[in-house]
Amino acid sequence: MTQPDAPSAPVTAGLLVIGDEILSGRTKDKNIGHIAEYMTALGIDLREVRVVADVEDDIVAALNALRTRYTYVFTTGGIGPTHDDITADSVAKAFGVPIDVDPRVVQIMKERFPDRPLNEARLRMARIPEGADLVPVGNMGAPGFWIGNVIVMAGIPTVMHAMLDSAAPKLKTGVRIMSETVRADAREGDIGTELGEVAKAHPDVMIGSYPYVDDKGPNTNLVVRSRDVEKLAAAKQAVEEMLARVKQRLAGSPG
Amino acid sequence: MTQPDAPSAPVTAGLLVIGDEILSGRTKDKNIGHIAEYMTALGIDLREVRVVADVEDDIVAALNALRTRYTYVFTTGGIGPTHDDITADSVAKAFGVPIDVDPRVVQIMKERFPDRPLNEARLRMARIPEGADLVPVGNMGAPGFWIGNVIVMAGIPTVMHAMLDSAAPKLKTGVRIMSETVRADAREGDIGTELGEVAKAHPDVMIGSYPYVDDKGPNTNLVVRSRDVEKLAAAKQAVEEMLARVKQRLAGSPG
Repeated sequence: MTQPDAPSAPVTAGLLVIGDEILSGRTKDKNIGHIAEYMTALGIDLREVRVVADVEDDIVAALNALRTRYTYVFTTGGIGPTHDDITADSVAKAFGVPIDVDPRVVQIMKERFPDRPLNEARLRMARIPEGADLVPVGNMGAPGFWIGNVIVMAGIPTVMHAMLDSAAPKLKTGVRIMSETVRADAREGDIGTELGEVAKAHPDVMIGSYPYVDDKGPNTNLVVRSRDVEKLAAAKQAVEEMLARVKQRLAGSPG
Repeated sequence: MTQPDAPSAPVTAGLLVIGDEILSGRTKDKNIGHIAEYMTALGIDLREVRVVADVEDDIVAALNALRTRYTYVFTTGGIGPTHDDITADSVAKAFGVPIDVDPRVVQIMKERFPDRPLNEARLRMARIPEGADLVPVGNMGAPGFWIGNVIVMAGIPTVMHAMLDSAAPKLKTGVRIMSETVRADAREGDIGTELGEVAKAHPDVMIGSYPYVDDKGPNTNLVVRSRDVEKLAAAKQAVEEMLARVKQRLAGSPG
């Protein structure tokens, strides 16, 4: 018999955020959250994020660790025109390929910005490792690039969004993870034991517990996640039944 | 002769953010930026951040990589009362020490929350690796802990802030990095070449270039950073003189 619903190997991703300004706290990263949501929507599992400084050895080491481990690696930051923009050169070094000014990018920059001189700084943005495909961004300017399983994007969120949209149609995607959120109306500590039992009884479903506080006091969101719609529904029902049992117990009434 | 201003070895830190909810995009991390700013204020160099899922092997591997590399490692997340809170057990495994319910934490929880039953779930929050010191948080509840060079904190920002404040007085701190920001009033691409020359002439000073767009159009902040006040002032002056030269050039007037 065929098994149309048999899960295929998951598509995974790592993210490498490059920039001193994130590590000093001067700039607050907004790209991790955006890319995380985007990957989830595509059915790609974002498994790891690293943030490193504008230091070539650190970028090369992190990139090599991530690219051998995940289906895709996305990078953000360090592809601008100044001396601290060393991502493209670091990626070339990680892949062991030459890098030079790419005539395709020069052409794009000349067309888009005929009034801006193509000086040494701007030509830095045209440096692309040999063998890379461009990740164009329409009229926004210099493109990102894609080499092997690594997609190199800008750090400025609006430009990064355009590059991600541009690369996305070419990504292998997985079976999308579905999720259901159940508000517990209970403190995490009051339901944790029973929730652990539900999680153990539903090993193919991820069950997360996220405490929060609002004006009514401490509460907990329980998030059930699965690629299988039936297993998701069964686990959600088990969570709801567990919550009803706990509420009865807390109210001191066995039935 | 003594050298009172001779720089000592820098104090460094790594940060490990633990949680599926950050990697799925469901929760947007707010701790990286806070800890980054906090470290900068203390004169500690935050060198690397990693975000990993609630998976023991991943937590252990990342923690061991970071704790051998930096003066301190901070972790956030995964110390609550539910089945997916596996940080304390993972830290014990990374250090190769036993872990059990710690009577000091039980005492704290009994005193703070006399009306909350110390069930199996809540006792999970009292599991502390052998040899760890507690990181108390006053009346906020269960403490974080500190073992070796690793400081384990909650993921909920308000609780994490309290734990960081509690641990901070015991941290070795470095010579604080000072910074000066100069608004370029120019596109990054128009000043990048000359800025690279300034950076090369001031090798002990970090010079970052951060483009942004506001209602007046594209602009660039140049941030000069150093632990040495005189070198900082000299580099800032060189940046300002460079900007004046570039503006003359762009205006087409040599003088």
